[in-house]
Amino acid sequence: MENHRPFLVLLFFAFALGFIAVVFVLRWVLHFREGLAWDGGAKEFNWHPLLAVTGFIFLQGIAIVVYRLPWTWKCSKLMMKFIHAGLNVLAFILAVISLVAVFDFHNVQNIPNMYSLHSWVGLAAVILFSLQIVLGVCIFLLPVSPGYVRAAFMPIHVFSGLFIFTTVIATALMGITEKLIFGLKDPKYKDSPPEATFVNVLGLLITVFGALILWITTRASWKRPSEQLLHTLHSNEPASVGTKTDTAISERPDPEPNSEARRRNGKTEE
Amino acid sequence: MENHRPFLVLLFFAFALGFIAVVFVLRWVLHFREGLAWDGGAKEFNWHPLLAVTGFIFLQGIAIVVYRLPWTWKCSKLMMKFIHAGLNVLAFILAVISLVAVFDFHNVQNIPNMYSLHSWVGLAAVILFSLQIVLGVCIFLLPVSPGYVRAAFMPIHVFSGLFIFTTVIATALMGITEKLIFGLKDPKYKDSPPEATFVNVLGLLITVFGALILWITTRASWKRPSEQLLHTLHSNEPASVGTKTDTAISERPDPEPNSEARRRNGKTEE
Repeated sequence: MENHRPFLVLLFFAFALGFIAVVFVLRWVLHFREGLAWDGGAKEFNWHPLLAVTGFIFLQGIAIVVYRLPWTWKCSKLMMKFIHAGLNVLAFILAVISLVAVFDFHNVQNIPNMYSLHSWVGLAAVILFSLQIVLGVCIFLLPVSPGYVRAAFMPIHVFSGLFIFTTVIATALMGITEKLIFGLKDPKYKDSPPEATFVNVLGLLITVFGALILWITTRASWKRPSEQLLHTLHSNEPASVGTKTDTAISERPDPEPNSEARRRNGKTEE
Repeated sequence: MENHRPFLVLLFFAFALGFIAVVFVLRWVLHFREGLAWDGGAKEFNWHPLLAVTGFIFLQGIAIVVYRLPWTWKCSKLMMKFIHAGLNVLAFILAVISLVAVFDFHNVQNIPNMYSLHSWVGLAAVILFSLQIVLGVCIFLLPVSPGYVRAAFMPIHVFSGLFIFTTVIATALMGITEKLIFGLKDPKYKDSPPEATFVNVLGLLITVFGALILWITTRASWKRPSEQLLHTLHSNEPASVGTKTDTAISERPDPEPNSEARRRNGKTEE
């Protein structure tokens, strides 16, 4: 891998920021808000931000970069696909539970559903995410689709994954805005009480986490190398494949810069 | 250019959606809100969404894709840099006026400034955008920085440009959320009056416009070809360079897939 140290530093910061964001949202609902329960009241609503940030943002972010981790390159591509799909399915389940919590809260409290831009964009993101998972499993995981279909669909799969991830973060920022306006009464949001500042910082943490995930994912030299190259390394040096992989990637004269280049060069990867 | 027709179709839809978004925000402030004036009241605030959507989103989006337009490939790279920089500077000026409008409105109305997540992320985006323009002009436009500096900075310039653009859209979605909650009293936002639905649609238009700009910009085969290739075409066929450019690009065996590949292959482009 080229620039191994910057990769590790940015990956560490991304994971740290994502983890701190989860701690922040947990402290928000437990310390500043009413806590957690499944009672149709404010405590049930609080599952919504907690599970959205934990599952739909943090877990999805990890699922997106999981192919980039050099120490996973000794694992088979199939296993990595299962891990990528599994993390995304887990993120989806948490996102759906977070939706159920807020719909249930609204119904009990006689608050209309689906009136806000936050709800429109958020539901669209959940629907697109379910479609992304179903198409991803059918095309890339099940051994039925021909290579040219996988190759043609890969750029769309990558772009839509990053777009959905970004959209979810934008939705979270709208949700934070809504909740701080509706939830803070005396003092109000505009009076900048500690909760307002704390949750604004949560919004910044989520935004920077998203930026780091997007940067890591879009660096061509940090992509998982082709299966052919890994296969060659496995065959020649089975005892020390992890180290050799890194060396080989940094030395290869013409790394495949993105998925479109991969599509042209070989169809065995997806 | 590969896939010339899909490029033109998507470009048309992107421009159309961006233009419709500008019409929507204009109708919002003129029909549903109080109109436009510079009086410290609600009419002055209305310049904020109008100029933010027109300048900071629509114009910035056009500035981002301007290198991709095949009919500009006969123009010199230097002229395209001036157009790219000029559009971004215009977007920046409109963004700053939109900020002045909202600060002035807040000050006259005794509303605190800079308390919301919308204001934090928005101001950060304006500051990053000014930094992006200054660094872009100093490094890529002025003939002083060496080639290796331009090559090293190009991936950061491209990523941060797309990141700022995306952040501005997320900020607009938060701003729409805020304004509909604060501005709609009887009926309220949750009662879904026509204005709420109309402005939610504006939010969707902006989001899809952003998605199309990001898709167009990140397709490797739609990038402006290298200056060396264009120079060769200019030298050989000066009378019909426009058509020949397209043909040559679609036929070249190994197009440069992204800016990192360009950095490796040549340093004369930036």
